[in-house]
Amino acid sequence: MNNNLLLIIVGVAVILAVSYAVFNYLCVKKMEEGTERMGEIAGAIRIGANAFIRYEYKLVAIIGAIIAVVVFIVISWQAAIAFVIGAVLSASAGWVGMKIATYANVRVTNKARETGDLGKTLKVAFKGGSVMGLCVAGFALLGVIIVYCVFGIAAGQIDEIASGEIGRNFITGLESSFTMTLSGYALGCSIIAMFNRVGGGIYTKAADMGADLVGKTEAHIPEDDPRNPATIADNVGDNVGDVAGLGSDLLESYVGAILSAVMLACELFMHDVYASTELLNRMLLFPVIFAGCGLISCVIGISYILIKPRLSKNVHMELNIATWISAAVTIGAGAVLSYFMFRDVDLALPAVGFKVGAFSPWLAAVCGILAGILIGIISEYYTSYDYKPTKKISQSSKEGPALTVTQGLANGMISCMLPVVVLAVAIFGSYALAGMYGIACAAFGMLSFVAATVSVDTYGPISDNAGGIAEMSGLEHGVREITDKLDSVGNTTAAIGKGFAIGSAAFAALSLMTSYLYAFTGSNLLLDLIDPLTLCGALCGAALPFLFSGMLIEAVAKAARKMVEEVRRQFREIKGLLEGETLPDYKTCIEISSQGALKEMRIPCIMCILFPLVTGFIFGPMFVAGLLIGATITAIMLALFCGNAGGAWDNAKKFIEAGGVEGEGKGSPAHDASVVGDTVGDPLKDTVGPSLDILIKIMSTVSLVAVVVFSKFNLFGTLGII
Amino acid sequence: MNNNLLLIIVGVAVILAVSYAVFNYLCVKKMEEGTERMGEIAGAIRIGANAFIRYEYKLVAIIGAIIAVVVFIVISWQAAIAFVIGAVLSASAGWVGMKIATYANVRVTNKARETGDLGKTLKVAFKGGSVMGLCVAGFALLGVIIVYCVFGIAAGQIDEIASGEIGRNFITGLESSFTMTLSGYALGCSIIAMFNRVGGGIYTKAADMGADLVGKTEAHIPEDDPRNPATIADNVGDNVGDVAGLGSDLLESYVGAILSAVMLACELFMHDVYASTELLNRMLLFPVIFAGCGLISCVIGISYILIKPRLSKNVHMELNIATWISAAVTIGAGAVLSYFMFRDVDLALPAVGFKVGAFSPWLAAVCGILAGILIGIISEYYTSYDYKPTKKISQSSKEGPALTVTQGLANGMISCMLPVVVLAVAIFGSYALAGMYGIACAAFGMLSFVAATVSVDTYGPISDNAGGIAEMSGLEHGVREITDKLDSVGNTTAAIGKGFAIGSAAFAALSLMTSYLYAFTGSNLLLDLIDPLTLCGALCGAALPFLFSGMLIEAVAKAARKMVEEVRRQFREIKGLLEGETLPDYKTCIEISSQGALKEMRIPCIMCILFPLVTGFIFGPMFVAGLLIGATITAIMLALFCGNAGGAWDNAKKFIEAGGVEGEGKGSPAHDASVVGDTVGDPLKDTVGPSLDILIKIMSTVSLVAVVVFSKFNLFGTLGII
Repeated sequence: MNNNLLLIIVGVAVILAVSYAVFNYLCVKKMEEGTERMGEIAGAIRIGANAFIRYEYKLVAIIGAIIAVVVFIVISWQAAIAFVIGAVLSASAGWVGMKIATYANVRVTNKARETGDLGKTLKVAFKGGSVMGLCVAGFALLGVIIVYCVFGIAAGQIDEIASGEIGRNFITGLESSFTMTLSGYALGCSIIAMFNRVGGGIYTKAADMGADLVGKTEAHIPEDDPRNPATIADNVGDNVGDVAGLGSDLLESYVGAILSAVMLACELFMHDVYASTELLNRMLLFPVIFAGCGLISCVIGISYILIKPRLSKNVHMELNIATWISAAVTIGAGAVLSYFMFRDVDLALPAVGFKVGAFSPWLAAVCGILAGILIGIISEYYTSYDYKPTKKISQSSKEGPALTVTQGLANGMISCMLPVVVLAVAIFGSYALAGMYGIACAAFGMLSFVAATVSVDTYGPISDNAGGIAEMSGLEHGVREITDKLDSVGNTTAAIGKGFAIGSAAFAALSLMTSYLYAFTGSNLLLDLIDPLTLCGALCGAALPFLFSGMLIEAVAKAARKMVEEVRRQFREIKGLLEGETLPDYKTCIEISSQGALKEMRIPCIMCILFPLVTGFIFGPMFVAGLLIGATITAIMLALFCGNAGGAWDNAKKFIEAGGVEGEGKGSPAHDASVVGDTVGDPLKDTVGPSLDILIKIMSTVSLVAVVVFSKFNLFGTLGII
Repeated sequence: MNNNLLLIIVGVAVILAVSYAVFNYLCVKKMEEGTERMGEIAGAIRIGANAFIRYEYKLVAIIGAIIAVVVFIVISWQAAIAFVIGAVLSASAGWVGMKIATYANVRVTNKARETGDLGKTLKVAFKGGSVMGLCVAGFALLGVIIVYCVFGIAAGQIDEIASGEIGRNFITGLESSFTMTLSGYALGCSIIAMFNRVGGGIYTKAADMGADLVGKTEAHIPEDDPRNPATIADNVGDNVGDVAGLGSDLLESYVGAILSAVMLACELFMHDVYASTELLNRMLLFPVIFAGCGLISCVIGISYILIKPRLSKNVHMELNIATWISAAVTIGAGAVLSYFMFRDVDLALPAVGFKVGAFSPWLAAVCGILAGILIGIISEYYTSYDYKPTKKISQSSKEGPALTVTQGLANGMISCMLPVVVLAVAIFGSYALAGMYGIACAAFGMLSFVAATVSVDTYGPISDNAGGIAEMSGLEHGVREITDKLDSVGNTTAAIGKGFAIGSAAFAALSLMTSYLYAFTGSNLLLDLIDPLTLCGALCGAALPFLFSGMLIEAVAKAARKMVEEVRRQFREIKGLLEGETLPDYKTCIEISSQGALKEMRIPCIMCILFPLVTGFIFGPMFVAGLLIGATITAIMLALFCGNAGGAWDNAKKFIEAGGVEGEGKGSPAHDASVVGDTVGDPLKDTVGPSLDILIKIMSTVSLVAVVVFSKFNLFGTLGII
């Protein structure tokens, strides 16, 4: 089988996905917006979101340009170009998603208003979501193909590895140009993702907390009530945080997972004895082609919902079917692919690590997929109010906010163990099946049908926004009921998505770390924590996610405090506001969120780029190796803790609202207590949790790019301390 | 210098310390109790505390007996006897401390009532505290001497190592009998400490939260008001948690720190090429003699306060002087000791690792002491309301409980970084000075003046209790003012103590882990996290402290919920209670705390013993090595997070009470919000935080004892998987 011909599959997948996205985009945009008031509100949300993204991208462009120049000077022009490609594609995915979400939201409301039909409304929302899902995967693979074909094949960087002619890096002579170029691309995606996630996360939660704290708790007006000055900001936040942030985040995860496998294959080939050039080529290509197959499968899965004439009332099931179709087709296609790609190459050498022949990498990928699903199910157990843990939090609300928070903290901490055990089993399993390369396979396996999961994930905030618009436009109660139903399903399905995100991040970080170690230890791979310098690195690394999380939470709290004060001021000073006679000043609230996010996002984001660099140049590569493993370990724990604690508090509140706790309901003291829990959980689950997976990958990629330099030049090495 | 003669110094220190403790005990007991009502209340507290300790010790005795039998069968009769000695001494230290605290509390109140003099009252409280401080260090060293002289010298276990005649363990032939005996002793101390800390911690916080949640927040009656049914339980809790728990905990830390150094010396000698038997003897003895010098220094430091005729009004300074005297004399004596012990032995071989000659171990110990002090200062920065972080929490209280909690979480997370950096620098520094042995020296250095710090730490809860008795006996306001002043100083000084506890735990865990690795890898010391099995161990290990913390928090919450319901019931059903006409039913509340603690403490405590054992026998020693390092890393982070977040919430509340936030004060909405923060922090800082350092040491010690068995017999090894 001709290797390069296989790339055509990926090209077809990309063209198919992007065309489908464009088609859906135009379909959605063509629909009616509904009443004038609806149009006005949607317009305000759109303007707010556009303005924020514009500001954010300006800031990011400056930082990105600086990094690109540094990469150009220190590494290579190829890596710098790849970096820019990654940054642009990642930014575009977030931007397109945000665009379509701000068009789709009002059209979802309108569809619900016009038809009153759940299935038809779902289709609009999902069509909007699919634009984002398809673009995320499509753009990511587009970039991969460009980098692969231009630099890997046309410029001969892969041949360089195959011919053993590595070491052309002008400073260290250690690293292959191709891994550096790939790292550059991954880094570009990661940096945009970090800013989008963190900025969006701060924006959305500051607005949300501000709106809830005064609106719900003090003034006792419902969510999204037009009298609440922070309500537009809150809805803008959904678009810039839950949509644009999510899009860039998952594009980054997807790219990270695929490229970590490709890079690992290069490193394995360069540093361990490998069988043949043919095998190298196959191992380099397999992740990319597998992803292409996944993307085509997702087009099929997504079409199920968009084409099926009458969807059933069970929205949850319909969405699950779409995801399962995507997953099943991916797995099936992957098996065929794995067999045909690896059956005729020599897998005999033990260093290859393929224990079960040609199917080894496929089985490792399946390991990852299963782990992702299991982690998602466990998350659901700990966060859904159908199960005991969340119910306990609801019950605790009767004893006031303190015990609600305490019980939620306990729940979040306890919830870390099971997913980690699953992760450990999957790591060991995928390693046993296909060596270190197997761990990388598990990472991209998990994300191979990302287009479907992102479509489902994005449809949630679109429905949420649609509900907001219904409320603010004063539409009849039935409309809100439909959007609420869609929204609540979105919350549940999001749990699975989160499982994949953190799981794949763990796998990708591990394989990036392996590449990192290869890059300076040669074939004598070692990460020895009994070495004091490495241990010190691990300790500092372990503290880093705590510091990062603390800074993000504080950023949200700071902006939220300002928001609270502003909303209180408006309630106090604007006459007739609470009576619904005048409209509040939405704009000031939007500005507070926007300014808060732009100001507060810088330091944590820049910190996680600089930390491995600075310590690398002072203490050398072993310290950074410790740093990476320490950070990876605690970031996984904190991500699970934050995600599950936050999700459980949210649903514990909903359980009380749904009448789950006898004698309590909306407005009761227990409900107030549960709102406190929900508010505490907000920044944890939507700002911190999803940023942590980017944190560990950005640190790994930065280190991988820079290690060629700081493994030669570092203070401790120069002083002869180590 | 004759080695064994040096042990006489330690013997003298022990006799001196214990006699001093007995003298102070009798002094305190001889004092007047005050009014009949005071005697009654103190009696009720004493009965409650005695009853709980009795129940607890019965439970612990059963578990201890089981473990002793297992140790006897699997390891050796010497280790089993050492285990029992450790358990008995640790239990005794806690018991004596609790006894004296329940006598001293009412006598402190009475001294304040009779004299109205701060200095004189301080003396009584500190005299009570010193009994505990001296007993903790005295008992610990007593046990060490017994084990050392009887098994090490008389039974010839040290000669066995010196003669290279190791490997007499009947199962594996790998380990020396002496390290096993020492591990047995350390394990005995650790297990009692774990139960005392966890049981006491659950007891005290369930009572405290229950009392506060209903009393302060709902009924708006002051703390320790006799109308509050949970108030006696709350005061009992201070004695069983903050006194007995603390005592056993620090005894365990102290023993762990000393013995980890002794064991490491054995392992170094057995597995690496060492210079001479003489050096082995010196390295074995140095930690013990150093501790003896420290104990004598503490007797001097403690005497400063007890003998000085007129103490100044600045209580904080006086206590600090006592601590600094103890520390300074210890450091001075240590330098002399180090010089005389190591100047005439051959330090030439690089494996010895002494880089600066005879002073190397002393300098490493000083590294540890400095690190402990710095960590304490950093903790103070993050938790005292004199500084920005805590003030920010107070300010956030104006925006309600949600932002109070959020800001506190952020603060706690951010606060992890600096102490960890200090720790890392100290680890690297002490290693650079004296090799792996240096890290162990840093651990016992940090705790060498533990008698002084425990005296200061214990005086806090005694004063707290004294205040409670004053309030409940309806004494005049001036009495309470004095006890409150003493109490608040106690809270600040406790920060330093916590810094030493977690810092030394980290160092001790690391040197125990090194011994563990030596025990099965021989001299090829390696903890390679790129090995998938080790990595899986590290991941599971990292989740363990989260699980453990979550379980403890949940245990407290569960008991507290019951307490809340009971207190609410009493307020509702007992007529005339809130009007102060009838007394509440204190006994039921005591039983709820007691039952809750006894029931809930079992699973987390047993879990942390079984986890390394079970996984060791299934996955083998490398998995457990990963488990230990993973657990150590996250336990340090969580301990810092819990301690600092909890402390800051507590003080943020106090800052509002002290009028620090303009326009707010006791009873204002901001104060109510800060009480929520304080309550959330309660189990974190007083149950979880202090238990985590025991967790990592218990896991390390259990593994060290059992590794000789499971390194030979484990499922994965048998199946040939690894």
